[in-house]
Amino acid sequence: MQKAIIIGASGYTGAELARILHLHPHFQLNGLYVSAQSQDAHKAISAIYPQLKQVVDLPLQPLGEDLTSLAQENDLVFLATAHEVSHDLAPIFLQNDCKVFDLSGAFRVNRPEFYPQYYGFEHRYPELLKQAVYGLAEWNATAIAQTDLVAVAGCYPTVSQLSLKPLIENHLLDLNQLPIINAVSGVTGAGRKASLTNSFCEVSLNAYGVFNHRHQPEIATHLGTEVIFTPHLGNFKRGILATITAKLKDGVSEQQIFEAYRQYYANKPLVRVYEQGLPSIKAVEFTPYCDIGFAVKNGYIIIVGAEDNLLKGAAAQAVQCANIRYGFTESLGLI
Amino acid sequence: MQKAIIIGASGYTGAELARILHLHPHFQLNGLYVSAQSQDAHKAISAIYPQLKQVVDLPLQPLGEDLTSLAQENDLVFLATAHEVSHDLAPIFLQNDCKVFDLSGAFRVNRPEFYPQYYGFEHRYPELLKQAVYGLAEWNATAIAQTDLVAVAGCYPTVSQLSLKPLIENHLLDLNQLPIINAVSGVTGAGRKASLTNSFCEVSLNAYGVFNHRHQPEIATHLGTEVIFTPHLGNFKRGILATITAKLKDGVSEQQIFEAYRQYYANKPLVRVYEQGLPSIKAVEFTPYCDIGFAVKNGYIIIVGAEDNLLKGAAAQAVQCANIRYGFTESLGLI
Amino acid sequence: MQKAIIIGASGYTGAELARILHLHPHFQLNGLYVSAQSQDAHKAISAIYPQLKQVVDLPLQPLGEDLTSLAQENDLVFLATAHEVSHDLAPIFLQNDCKVFDLSGAFRVNRPEFYPQYYGFEHRYPELLKQAVYGLAEWNATAIAQTDLVAVAGCYPTVSQLSLKPLIENHLLDLNQLPIINAVSGVTGAGRKASLTNSFCEVSLNAYGVFNHRHQPEIATHLGTEVIFTPHLGNFKRGILATITAKLKDGVSEQQIFEAYRQYYANKPLVRVYEQGLPSIKAVEFTPYCDIGFAVKNGYIIIVGAEDNLLKGAAAQAVQCANIRYGFTESLGLI
Amino acid sequence: MQKAIIIGASGYTGAELARILHLHPHFQLNGLYVSAQSQDAHKAISAIYPQLKQVVDLPLQPLGEDLTSLAQENDLVFLATAHEVSHDLAPIFLQNDCKVFDLSGAFRVNRPEFYPQYYGFEHRYPELLKQAVYGLAEWNATAIAQTDLVAVAGCYPTVSQLSLKPLIENHLLDLNQLPIINAVSGVTGAGRKASLTNSFCEVSLNAYGVFNHRHQPEIATHLGTEVIFTPHLGNFKRGILATITAKLKDGVSEQQIFEAYRQYYANKPLVRVYEQGLPSIKAVEFTPYCDIGFAVKNGYIIIVGAEDNLLKGAAAQAVQCANIRYGFTESLGLI
Repeated sequence: MQKAIIIGASGYTGAELARILHLHPHFQLNGLYVSAQSQDAHKAISAIYPQLKQVVDLPLQPLGEDLTSLAQENDLVFLATAHEVSHDLAPIFLQNDCKVFDLSGAFRVNRPEFYPQYYGFEHRYPELLKQAVYGLAEWNATAIAQTDLVAVAGCYPTVSQLSLKPLIENHLLDLNQLPIINAVSGVTGAGRKASLTNSFCEVSLNAYGVFNHRHQPEIATHLGTEVIFTPHLGNFKRGILATITAKLKDGVSEQQIFEAYRQYYANKPLVRVYEQGLPSIKAVEFTPYCDIGFAVKNGYIIIVGAEDNLLKGAAAQAVQCANIRYGFTESLGLI
Repeated sequence: MQKAIIIGASGYTGAELARILHLHPHFQLNGLYVSAQSQDAHKAISAIYPQLKQVVDLPLQPLGEDLTSLAQENDLVFLATAHEVSHDLAPIFLQNDCKVFDLSGAFRVNRPEFYPQYYGFEHRYPELLKQAVYGLAEWNATAIAQTDLVAVAGCYPTVSQLSLKPLIENHLLDLNQLPIINAVSGVTGAGRKASLTNSFCEVSLNAYGVFNHRHQPEIATHLGTEVIFTPHLGNFKRGILATITAKLKDGVSEQQIFEAYRQYYANKPLVRVYEQGLPSIKAVEFTPYCDIGFAVKNGYIIIVGAEDNLLKGAAAQAVQCANIRYGFTESLGLI
Repeated sequence: MQKAIIIGASGYTGAELARILHLHPHFQLNGLYVSAQSQDAHKAISAIYPQLKQVVDLPLQPLGEDLTSLAQENDLVFLATAHEVSHDLAPIFLQNDCKVFDLSGAFRVNRPEFYPQYYGFEHRYPELLKQAVYGLAEWNATAIAQTDLVAVAGCYPTVSQLSLKPLIENHLLDLNQLPIINAVSGVTGAGRKASLTNSFCEVSLNAYGVFNHRHQPEIATHLGTEVIFTPHLGNFKRGILATITAKLKDGVSEQQIFEAYRQYYANKPLVRVYEQGLPSIKAVEFTPYCDIGFAVKNGYIIIVGAEDNLLKGAAAQAVQCANIRYGFTESLGLI
Repeated sequence: MQKAIIIGASGYTGAELARILHLHPHFQLNGLYVSAQSQDAHKAISAIYPQLKQVVDLPLQPLGEDLTSLAQENDLVFLATAHEVSHDLAPIFLQNDCKVFDLSGAFRVNRPEFYPQYYGFEHRYPELLKQAVYGLAEWNATAIAQTDLVAVAGCYPTVSQLSLKPLIENHLLDLNQLPIINAVSGVTGAGRKASLTNSFCEVSLNAYGVFNHRHQPEIATHLGTEVIFTPHLGNFKRGILATITAKLKDGVSEQQIFEAYRQYYANKPLVRVYEQGLPSIKAVEFTPYCDIGFAVKNGYIIIVGAEDNLLKGAAAQAVQCANIRYGFTESLGLI
């Protein structure tokens, strides 16, 4: 059993990680941590997530000053922390031979100038940025298996890239016309915090971050091509639905597209390619899957991808990466 | 035209008041005010309530220090403020001949000891408590027509009392068994503020304030009999549904109950008594009505009352009281 | 007072029409009709829409055989009927000098071959198709003022065209790249009927009608340019949010775009152009407005349009067209 | 491995059963069946429940005429069928030594006159009514372990009885005043079918079946005391929240109540008694638990019970009963 801890366990993603790791056959959940300043410190996680009562009742321990010992006592750490906190914590764990699965954006884009612009802080570890492997599990398994620092892909980037990558890699898209990604996320995507924006009575359906969301450059960087990405907030708790419109190269057939998806995902247990119909939020909420369907007409393709933002878009993919790192079946403990 | 202002206009109730008064034929909306510390000060109300764009675009003015002038320049004021703020403001407006329609709990219960226990502050105006008329419009119209201080009834108390009062006044209930009021409110009832409790992802359906909600003594005081009142928070924005179970006196018939409701509400345009079926949230949301239906069996009655908590439970009833005070048709500007 | 009737009054749009016309100062609501086979025939409209109790209590009369008399006794008729029913009824009313405001798709596209393909029936009135004026009120007011047959624009087409038309008319878009319209509609858009698709537990968020929705050719025809249109069903009752991505012509500035919107909508009371921020469903539900906001970057524009599908997308726009036809202020009875 | 089949597998409860049994370590899911007339016959279950794609892809087989063979080939059958269908099927399976776990109401109340009144059919198997064990798992484990016909408790009755039984058994309640049960259920409780009542746009929050719901006599029979039970339909998919008000016997303390709950549920893994706070829908949705909390004041108790209506209120409790019948840990395959 590998000893795993979660830092930032009081958030929605942290709670999902706790549930998954607690039930995982090869990882032992060895501790839940929150910021020492957190109002949730010392509470049982099930006190703030009542659905976890009698499932996971571990306390949310305040993160102490002796991180070295914490790192040495554990085999792997999941950082479900704010970007800047992950940025500061990851090096300490890595120096002490604790593998890091970071769910923040702190190590996803290997371009230091990206961080001041999109995350508001200077990145002080350019070497780690180089070493970090982008945790898009279906695409980077070989590298993930060999690294000690996985920058788990963002929620929107996961569904967007899983939908587009097979077509781009197989040169089926005419990228002179930028792929247009319109995505709607449930409110858990904004995290667990008091905020007027996320208040029950304020949420309806609206676009946000238009032309300037930090996931746009994350997607473009790892796809290797520009895209237009417009996120929306919807009145539901979990899930992302991404509707992607792109131009096909002349003569590309529906059959070729199916083949491309099959080629890449035939042995990928957490991606479900639809032979007919299209995914919905209902199909993926509370599941670890990314679902992909599409339609083709007059030289255009519309791809619909869906995932649970907290699972395939965060916690489940992080554990999938950890499974890959340790040589386990990648869906172990997830299905 | 009577000049009316709203203090506390940035809240959900304040915004409803603004919309109603703006369209009212006999009241002139003469100003919207918020606390001088409010982040919304100086914004147009339509900047925070986009549905009001081009309907009401008045600015939310910071409440200044010269309240005397403000009072003298206006005929009536609606206080959609925190209880303690209403407590402090009402006397100033009354001294300057400005009629006060207070939507807070500051003047609803004429028992000074009630305030420290349920509202957390000492009441310094016992004389005003005596003078204040409880603004349950269908029941206190005569007194409302003559007072300058109306303590508009609370949201839960309005629907609860409108449902029960005709039966109690007509001695149809066996009050040895306490009426049991179970009510579910939409989230606007908790006000417009950032709070984890009201966060979209935290709301589901739960009881709260069990055995200790401040509306229990408000209801009991004005009904003149004890009740058990259990409020719940539901996953919808507007509306209250109250399900009330009570024991009938021996031999009381369904017909007698209908007659009691008809007797009291025949000429009350904002109460709709159902001849068959029962109200739902859908029937009352965005309307100024309180709907009442009931069923009888084996000596028990179940009454279902419903209202929009922001309208009949707050803003619409406040304007209804103002209509009564000025001798207008009580539903003027509301239907 | 012009005498108006509604046929198809039991549907969601019919009920909105009833409410609006009942309160309208210059139209007299002279009757509500449903199919003679309807289970709702003879009921009061408020029996199936309890929110209308004491507001509109008219009966839903079964449509009889003597349509000629019905037409002769009234000045205008609103057809909130199925496409094929409107197709059959409109000629009868027109022959008897009753103006027709048809909310179905039966007369929107002046291409007879369109109907078998998209609506499943042969159109037998090509002459009427020529005479019918497309009821996109802000754009066709002159023609609407002179016709007796208005084919009120569809819900998605209204918000899509109001968003795009000023830019297309002013030649600001590079139409070599097709505008991409992604829109999400509330479930009322599917009508009031028992259906598994619209069942509470089945609705989440999904795309439908991809590449083959009948509103795509409606939009393309009246815009005069092709578009890619992808509708979605969302888990809310009312409203449409359309997110539109288009390429700007070289050198087009944000200022030019604002000017285009201002030029066309400065005097249009039911279109609200945002100087900052973007519309949401919350901003438009239960209002007669179409809201439009946009952002520009790197030669692309993202426009977000929103409306209440039952109001500006149906009933309110139908009454707006009737107001125009009779020379009233176009927003009369709507704001 | 025991071979298990599900009849009525296309409904919401059937789908939950399929998921649970598919993953169960000791039951082998040996077939899914639907009525031969069902439109879903021959489809994969994952075609109608896309979340089950790659989890359970078994076909929904039309139920044939040779039920004898089907019974002989299997060890146990779960009947997620209409009451009358269960009534007809159960004897056939029992005659062929196939254990029956019936999730309908067909065998829950051992009073033949109950069926015509509440279910609309004559019961033809009074002998089976006598033999059937009421599947309220925490209370009837000994009998469940020995029977071949379990009538799994209804959704409302499960949470109501689990909340009340410890207090009644320990004589803590003054039953001269009837316990008042107000419960709100999610819409899945109404089953998977096209119906205007369950249509997305029609659902809000309303009471139904007042004084005449069939679960009232089920509760009263098995509690051994009368209750007033008022069910409501709420605007959410899954879960039941029951708020129960009852009078305590003189002198009963909070401590005694805790002790009563502890005494009965200390070793019951699927009941979670709250030491503080109260359950919410959020705490139980997608879990197999029934959660119970309470508050006491002035001789009254308010108990709040919650469960997922499809799990502890149906599928999970059915499997719990089957676990008990076969001597497995009762929560096997459920947590």
